[in-house]
Amino acid sequence: MNYAQMNENQLSQELSRLKEEYDGFKSMNLKLNMARGKPGQEQLALSLPMLDVLNSKSDFKAENGIDCRNYGELTGIVDAKRMFSDYMGVNENEIIVVGSSSLTFMYDSMARAMLKGVLGSDKPWCKYDKVKFICPVPGYDRHFTICEFLDIEMIPVPLNEDGPDMDAIEELIKDESVKGMWCVPKYSNPLGSVFSDKAVKRLAAMKPAAKDFRIFWDNAYAVHYVYKDVPVCNILQECKKAGNPNMCYMFGSTSKITFPGAGVAFFAASEDNIKFVEKQLSAQSISWDKMNMLRHVRFFKNADGIREHMKKHAEILRPRFDSVINALKNNLAPMGIGSYVEPDGGYFVTYIAPKGCAKRIVELCKEAGVTLTGAGATHPYKNDPDDSYIRIAPSFPSIEELDKAMEIFCVCAKIAYAEKLSK
Amino acid sequence: MNYAQMNENQLSQELSRLKEEYDGFKSMNLKLNMARGKPGQEQLALSLPMLDVLNSKSDFKAENGIDCRNYGELTGIVDAKRMFSDYMGVNENEIIVVGSSSLTFMYDSMARAMLKGVLGSDKPWCKYDKVKFICPVPGYDRHFTICEFLDIEMIPVPLNEDGPDMDAIEELIKDESVKGMWCVPKYSNPLGSVFSDKAVKRLAAMKPAAKDFRIFWDNAYAVHYVYKDVPVCNILQECKKAGNPNMCYMFGSTSKITFPGAGVAFFAASEDNIKFVEKQLSAQSISWDKMNMLRHVRFFKNADGIREHMKKHAEILRPRFDSVINALKNNLAPMGIGSYVEPDGGYFVTYIAPKGCAKRIVELCKEAGVTLTGAGATHPYKNDPDDSYIRIAPSFPSIEELDKAMEIFCVCAKIAYAEKLSK
Repeated sequence: MNYAQMNENQLSQELSRLKEEYDGFKSMNLKLNMARGKPGQEQLALSLPMLDVLNSKSDFKAENGIDCRNYGELTGIVDAKRMFSDYMGVNENEIIVVGSSSLTFMYDSMARAMLKGVLGSDKPWCKYDKVKFICPVPGYDRHFTICEFLDIEMIPVPLNEDGPDMDAIEELIKDESVKGMWCVPKYSNPLGSVFSDKAVKRLAAMKPAAKDFRIFWDNAYAVHYVYKDVPVCNILQECKKAGNPNMCYMFGSTSKITFPGAGVAFFAASEDNIKFVEKQLSAQSISWDKMNMLRHVRFFKNADGIREHMKKHAEILRPRFDSVINALKNNLAPMGIGSYVEPDGGYFVTYIAPKGCAKRIVELCKEAGVTLTGAGATHPYKNDPDDSYIRIAPSFPSIEELDKAMEIFCVCAKIAYAEKLSK
Repeated sequence: MNYAQMNENQLSQELSRLKEEYDGFKSMNLKLNMARGKPGQEQLALSLPMLDVLNSKSDFKAENGIDCRNYGELTGIVDAKRMFSDYMGVNENEIIVVGSSSLTFMYDSMARAMLKGVLGSDKPWCKYDKVKFICPVPGYDRHFTICEFLDIEMIPVPLNEDGPDMDAIEELIKDESVKGMWCVPKYSNPLGSVFSDKAVKRLAAMKPAAKDFRIFWDNAYAVHYVYKDVPVCNILQECKKAGNPNMCYMFGSTSKITFPGAGVAFFAASEDNIKFVEKQLSAQSISWDKMNMLRHVRFFKNADGIREHMKKHAEILRPRFDSVINALKNNLAPMGIGSYVEPDGGYFVTYIAPKGCAKRIVELCKEAGVTLTGAGATHPYKNDPDDSYIRIAPSFPSIEELDKAMEIFCVCAKIAYAEKLSK
């Protein structure tokens, strides 16, 4: 029965029944975690053979003869540039292969923009009274943390199933202090949105008042399908066509392909951007970890090798996503308790709780031993005005753990909603 | 015969003889490089077994059970913190083990100070009209590049055999815009200076006008002796004793212990500094490459393992340093052509050319196929007012190559000096 149609008495009965069930879970002293998008054990095992491709007997030369054990090659070894430029759909002179984290490189790119500006800047961004960034919401908490740390004001715009609200964005970019925006174009964190061709083309054709505007295109889940691989239009190519070749910065990494934090990250952009950034980077680094680049290239051979590898990840992730989605579908949807988004890929399932219930659900889950990402994390300044969005990360727990965690989650959602209706 | 005592005729004869010799070298079309402090092949081979300690069959858990293949542990795995805190002479809560380059972490630390300030700052350094840094000279070009890139004004002070000119420094720090200084306390780049206990204690006891003053203590060559291991007083302990616990930032890495650019770097400071920096870092990173940390810890076991390993490096480096020093001693010193510094360790030999000759020597060497670090690189803004300092890096070439390169170097030095005297 739909909770909203229950009378006071029915609600009260349902609530006491739910609390009994909840207390049962609590007494189990469980410790389950659906908070972070961490690959699980089976996924990590997929990349173990990569550790064997470099050993004391290996040849450590890159294709061009560079010794990967020594200093040099600030923009990465040619072998890695080839593989990851194919992966990113750019030319080999449009990529820099860097350290082990794309998040770090995004932070670094923003920090450099603040300190020194980007190609085409009149002055460093920190010299403006105010710098603003457009943030499609719900979005990735760590993007927001970077902006908040660097005192960049965040302006939320709604993210829809097929991309951000372009009308809102085209209005916002008339303000010269709006210097850029975050995008996760494919299987977005957490909503799983995939930007439509129309959205990508419209983004690429923008004419922002700030001539040093940058789209931070975090293509974190480029090959991370779960149910269906959905192609996304290439932002760099579209920017070129639209006469805005320098407007986008693309980021990617193998963190969720091989080992989180011990993979390889890369940055793609127009050749002019790359040259400009390379010069700036020469103050920060002599070279990044070429041994790990070589390890990755020798293991995957090429971008197709990565794509093949991702099929195995999808096989492992699918039953986990099924577990979460089925729980929401069977236990909450029929009672009209919130809604959820079924993604085609990525790392998350978004549950949209009835207004004002998200924080309470996370709190109830926590008390029963189920850790979730904090409510609000999906929004700048942790401010979800509806208190609705909850990001569920199904990858790390076992299926048994997930089933149990989702059972508890659904009971918590029911309690929170019933409490709200009872007020 | 001492060149300075030659008459015009003798000089002219000597010069034509030298040019003949020089042309002979030129016709050999050599390609020799004494420019960068890169470990040579034999040195790199010492660490190859490290690549075998992690393979697909390994256990990937750190001591505290953390899986090194996944996200987490922003400050590094406990195993690595223990080993490198012993190495740096600090407590385990006074260290953060990071990515593969201490230079990158120095840049990052300076960039964070500019953007957000350090513990105790009233405001970010970039909000001051002017930020200045004290730079002992001759020094490391990449330190200077960081300052130049970040628009930090560099003030050179003389570096002596036992440390920097403390009288000059104590005068400079009365200026509140002087926010810090660079130090390479042991086997300094390029001079090989080792700071005396007195110098370290005097540095630690400074009372700078800027209360957020930081000593950037780049202990790059902590265990890198060649002839003699010379102990250096621990700056953090001395700062604590002097009531300045937060005044120093210590940096180190295994770049010249295992693989340059593919090693592990670390940052040590007071516990309060570490807490403050950790919080700032959480905007930049989820975690650094823990697999490489584990690889290093499993290979070396502990700091003593590193020290044992460095004995092998010293064995390999010693004949190379001998080659350079003997060439200078036998071919230039007797003719009174410049002077040189015999270091106990580190990666460089400094040749101090007669005034106004360094650039010419580097140019002559280059034309004869011998690449050297650019003259002036040892000074801020590449400005060596005497045009005297030349940094020679003996590690990378084979001994045969070094012998030949130094033969050419000495002829070039003679020509430059003879030319100068002839003017």
